[in-house]
Amino acid sequence: MSPSPGRVAVVGLGLMGASLAMALDRRGVRVRGVEVDPAARAFLAGRLPGVAVFPAVEAAALEGAEVVVLAVPLAALAPVAAAVAVHLPPAAVVTDLTSVKAPALERMLEHLPARRVVGGHPMAGRTSAGPYASDPDLFHGRPWAVVAPKGAEASAAAAVRDLARLVGARPVDLDAEGHDRAVAAVSHLPYLLSGALARAVAELGAGAPVEALVGPGLEGMLRLAAQPAWMDDVCAHNRAHLAPALAALEAALAPVQEALAAADAGALRALGEAGRRAHERLLGRAQPS
Amino acid sequence: MSPSPGRVAVVGLGLMGASLAMALDRRGVRVRGVEVDPAARAFLAGRLPGVAVFPAVEAAALEGAEVVVLAVPLAALAPVAAAVAVHLPPAAVVTDLTSVKAPALERMLEHLPARRVVGGHPMAGRTSAGPYASDPDLFHGRPWAVVAPKGAEASAAAAVRDLARLVGARPVDLDAEGHDRAVAAVSHLPYLLSGALARAVAELGAGAPVEALVGPGLEGMLRLAAQPAWMDDVCAHNRAHLAPALAALEAALAPVQEALAAADAGALRALGEAGRRAHERLLGRAQPS
Repeated sequence: MSPSPGRVAVVGLGLMGASLAMALDRRGVRVRGVEVDPAARAFLAGRLPGVAVFPAVEAAALEGAEVVVLAVPLAALAPVAAAVAVHLPPAAVVTDLTSVKAPALERMLEHLPARRVVGGHPMAGRTSAGPYASDPDLFHGRPWAVVAPKGAEASAAAAVRDLARLVGARPVDLDAEGHDRAVAAVSHLPYLLSGALARAVAELGAGAPVEALVGPGLEGMLRLAAQPAWMDDVCAHNRAHLAPALAALEAALAPVQEALAAADAGALRALGEAGRRAHERLLGRAQPS
Repeated sequence: MSPSPGRVAVVGLGLMGASLAMALDRRGVRVRGVEVDPAARAFLAGRLPGVAVFPAVEAAALEGAEVVVLAVPLAALAPVAAAVAVHLPPAAVVTDLTSVKAPALERMLEHLPARRVVGGHPMAGRTSAGPYASDPDLFHGRPWAVVAPKGAEASAAAAVRDLARLVGARPVDLDAEGHDRAVAAVSHLPYLLSGALARAVAELGAGAPVEALVGPGLEGMLRLAAQPAWMDDVCAHNRAHLAPALAALEAALAPVQEALAAADAGALRALGEAGRRAHERLLGRAQPS
């Protein structure tokens, strides 16, 4: 029995696209790719000899594909969807990997029929960009949001779920609004916060020997700040949900500031306990250090 | 040539004290310990058969020690220093491992002579408490702040620096005020922020499928929120430096909120770039993901 889907086209072989292509190739799926960058193509020719990589969206790249994955940033999604529409096999399902689903679906549906389009968002990533850090195990054990628009056929959503499972991820069915609201909290707010902390600590470092004392705790909190610039566009596109998320964070910081101002050690202790409980509830287990 | 110091007493064998005792024992230092908890003593008898562990501060525990390490929380530091003062060998140096140095030195100097007291603070830790997660490599490659009060002898500070180097750490000489200001930024502010984020995301999770999408990015940002409750006391004791650090963070968040409210993608991009530059400056290198 061959895995389902058996033939996939991945348009855009950056970190996410190349990792997906590797994972699928390893599982015996016939993968074809599209990548505009010649250096990335040369690198992939060595790493993925079994995957034909084309320099542009053309008929041969999509030929026979059961699923076409648009692995490009949100800013490129509309033109890529338009190019894909020209050569799309009639039964193929189109999905994407971007992290804000309402604007992504809007862009895809401008050019593609709703019945064969299903948004996707694997909750996986690295701070490095490009195919050079790609990893076929990137999706292993991760949630993969599956967002079917109104009018999508059940078989199209099923194909995207199968794709996610095939590379070890855990499909989670969501609507675009619920997805975008949730990722504002779990992904975009943490990114903005990490960047703000980096800026604040760098500024505080002008008056204190901060750099000599940086340890793994701060490093962990600043890791997300190094994410590539496309995260800023993602945040701009998800501002409707990010603004209230940031307001919730401000509301969570206010009593900390009050407790510090009042030298209220009991209040700080209660806030610390509430943080430990929230940590436990969100992560569902004691965290290894 | 025997390592210097050759005889150390560690009072308090929680995560930090037990890790230090293991690291010293492994390097041939004669270590004696004090631990009030019988379960912890039983555990350590198996893990550290060469280290005599006493149930209380007594003459035999400190006998012959060149350095006495008070590895107890700030709240216990004054009574432990008082007990140590009774049995202290005349030439012994006393140091501690707590993370706010002005109040720690104040407590130690109430009971001990300034010439032989030097504060210490290894920038290492885990979210697990107790000796059960202890690790002789915990201090390897980490900064270890060395804070000599006015009146401390140069040889006392040198002994603490030697101790730090002996377990693989990198001693950093600081004054108490500079240290406390810096750790407010690199350690205590990140803890408070991590807790506030955990509380905010848990609240946002009431209206969105947050828990289904939690990934490694959020996990990394919430890790510090799980630190033990003694961190709350540390924050209370460092409030003079934490309040301005928190204000700096609020000031760093304000333009993010404004950019979201104004749908100003260019401003978000500029803030993201500033965050990436600050990350690079603070961590001094590209971060692996």
